[in-house]
Amino acid sequence: MTSATVHDRSATATEGSGPSEDELRQLPGLVSVDDHIVEPPDLWTSHLGNDPEKVPHVVRKQVPRGAGSDELVWADVWVYEDVEVPLIRAFQSVGMAADEVDLVPLTLDECRKGVVDRDARLADMDIDGIEVEVLFPNNFVRFCGQVFLEAKDKKLALECVKIYNDYLLEEWQAPSGERLIASTIVPLWDVELAAAEVRRNAARGGRAVCFSEIPARLGLPSMYSGYWEPLFQACAETDTVVNMHIGSSSTQHTTSPDAPPGVRIANHFSNSAFSLTDWLYCGAFIRYPDLKIAFSEAQAGWIPFLVHRLDNLWSPGRDYRNPDPPLPNPPSHYLRDHVYACVFDDVDMLKHIDVLGEDQICFEADYPHPDGSWPNSRRRALELTATVERPVRDKFLRYNAAKLYRIERVLKELSEPTTGR
Amino acid sequence: MTSATVHDRSATATEGSGPSEDELRQLPGLVSVDDHIVEPPDLWTSHLGNDPEKVPHVVRKQVPRGAGSDELVWADVWVYEDVEVPLIRAFQSVGMAADEVDLVPLTLDECRKGVVDRDARLADMDIDGIEVEVLFPNNFVRFCGQVFLEAKDKKLALECVKIYNDYLLEEWQAPSGERLIASTIVPLWDVELAAAEVRRNAARGGRAVCFSEIPARLGLPSMYSGYWEPLFQACAETDTVVNMHIGSSSTQHTTSPDAPPGVRIANHFSNSAFSLTDWLYCGAFIRYPDLKIAFSEAQAGWIPFLVHRLDNLWSPGRDYRNPDPPLPNPPSHYLRDHVYACVFDDVDMLKHIDVLGEDQICFEADYPHPDGSWPNSRRRALELTATVERPVRDKFLRYNAAKLYRIERVLKELSEPTTGR
Repeated sequence: MTSATVHDRSATATEGSGPSEDELRQLPGLVSVDDHIVEPPDLWTSHLGNDPEKVPHVVRKQVPRGAGSDELVWADVWVYEDVEVPLIRAFQSVGMAADEVDLVPLTLDECRKGVVDRDARLADMDIDGIEVEVLFPNNFVRFCGQVFLEAKDKKLALECVKIYNDYLLEEWQAPSGERLIASTIVPLWDVELAAAEVRRNAARGGRAVCFSEIPARLGLPSMYSGYWEPLFQACAETDTVVNMHIGSSSTQHTTSPDAPPGVRIANHFSNSAFSLTDWLYCGAFIRYPDLKIAFSEAQAGWIPFLVHRLDNLWSPGRDYRNPDPPLPNPPSHYLRDHVYACVFDDVDMLKHIDVLGEDQICFEADYPHPDGSWPNSRRRALELTATVERPVRDKFLRYNAAKLYRIERVLKELSEPTTGR
Repeated sequence: MTSATVHDRSATATEGSGPSEDELRQLPGLVSVDDHIVEPPDLWTSHLGNDPEKVPHVVRKQVPRGAGSDELVWADVWVYEDVEVPLIRAFQSVGMAADEVDLVPLTLDECRKGVVDRDARLADMDIDGIEVEVLFPNNFVRFCGQVFLEAKDKKLALECVKIYNDYLLEEWQAPSGERLIASTIVPLWDVELAAAEVRRNAARGGRAVCFSEIPARLGLPSMYSGYWEPLFQACAETDTVVNMHIGSSSTQHTTSPDAPPGVRIANHFSNSAFSLTDWLYCGAFIRYPDLKIAFSEAQAGWIPFLVHRLDNLWSPGRDYRNPDPPLPNPPSHYLRDHVYACVFDDVDMLKHIDVLGEDQICFEADYPHPDGSWPNSRRRALELTATVERPVRDKFLRYNAAKLYRIERVLKELSEPTTGR
């Protein structure tokens, strides 16, 4: 009988266990497919003026330490129409000790500089052995730009979306020499505008876009509505990867108000599972054979079980449970070449290479969030891939992501690893 | 590169593939841990009179074929207080061809006799090579007796709960020679009454009870409230297994109203994942070292990923995400000897024996539901366990369930299979 303990954190900290310093040094630069910037306080006011009634801006003030708390702490608070969103320690926790990370508000001055400053970020990536990062929004803009979808003044919101993308593409991606890749946002409320924004961004190097894992949960047309075709078409045509970050449906599930936050955090993957089901059922990969999607921060170990289940429910004839018209092939048929998993702490994925394929799992460091691995990403990457042969490891940690996001600087030094499969 | 197709249904139907007729004949009787009766139309009226204002009873009438349909079909409809629940083909589909199974109402006369008649059920089990079944309610009572929780007259509802349990224990379990095991229901609205009902049933051979996978979703106190301690205490004391069937939180998730039913069906496991998180976090297994729970119809392939994730979130010190006070051991520590997975179509579980353990996976045939395997349960059981050595197979298909539900008739002919682990 094997031990009941799956993972003992104290054991991984034991000196001498895990990869050696030598192995860490020899590892080629990692490509991380999910990291975040903190939106700078003057991002929109510098372009649109600072009318506090309209333009997103930051106010430094004292706010409650938590819901129902009498204690006040200083915080930088985003203010935009009716919304007030303080920076929260857990959304920019990089560099903090584990016991300092919580849901308490804070100021930008308390955060590591790399969260908001490009050159400081590049230096932090060097410390961590990260060659490339794919950059997402943070807790104000939210993971597919929901804050602008919810805005009342949609004309202004469209301007804000464009300013955000300009900033990410021109201030972070362009000067970085392909070390920083923007995952842009789109005006989700208008699919033609969204498709146009994908094309506008693609024309200047954009290659990834944030989309909602479950658009109907944002009050938008569903994956079965046909509404999103122009956006998917634009992404397929421009080789723009559709990234669906956890949280991008603005819903999280838990069991009860008194359940610890870990219940919803550990189960974030359930929305990704619903989303993958939609993508496999809705036929988008039949209509757009070049379309590629990634489940950012969703890991991979749940995918094989779900896909087996979908295949076993699949019926080539009439079945009341399945899409109508039915899929001509089992759902798993549409995984390969379309669906990418993004893994930060999931050893189980390696048991399932037969389902997802060694070409579709990518590593992520999730800077600057609490699940992020900075400054130990090399160590985590090697621990995650300890049981696979080196060419497969190179695929997970570097090549798959470089191919997906077309990182020429990585691809040109590296032909596709030969795995003997 | 391996094929993208995980499972090709047409291939499994090919003659010559899968287990041979000889292998099927030699298989010892299966123990199935999740099957259902259909509540007989006169179950409550025969004891409580037939005042249609009060007592659950059946009316045969014409009802719409489906939501918004003008077409009428004959159906047997349960009537109880404000509730009208027709029998639905998909809830008693055993024996129907795949293309006859749907959500259309029907009469009991159209159903296979074994759904409602004990001796017919035993004969159907013989046909299918099933030695023992654990019996759950069906779509009127619902999978932890929610219909009585929702009733207005709770005094009458308690009587109804007792009549149901009397029927299941005395008419099905007792005369069956341990071939039929009742999963009883309890008055969920009063934990002291619920604990008393567990003890009343245990005294006459009861050994399993239906509980909600997420009680707070039924408007009941949460798993963290302390409210359920008397029930857990009663179950631990009486060796009563706590069964949580999918659907027992009265919630199912989907992505949009126009999504096919398969989205929620394939993702039923997400509620089980939330439930397992609660059970591992709430400390019940620390307080009740003898308590055993089973996730009926939830399968197993999702468990290792979730448990790894919970372990990696676990911190022996302070962590804002985890239970307070924190668990002294990582969540996975509390799996072994407590948590049982019930599998009907999940080959992935076999890749994860190191996490769940070969002692805690049980087979289920799910008679008479659409995922049920009748009359091919032997074939499905062998396909599910094709890659494991015979003693492990015997554990999955027979011994683990017999030990969990204390089926002496199986245990006495079989010592614990030796697996060499």
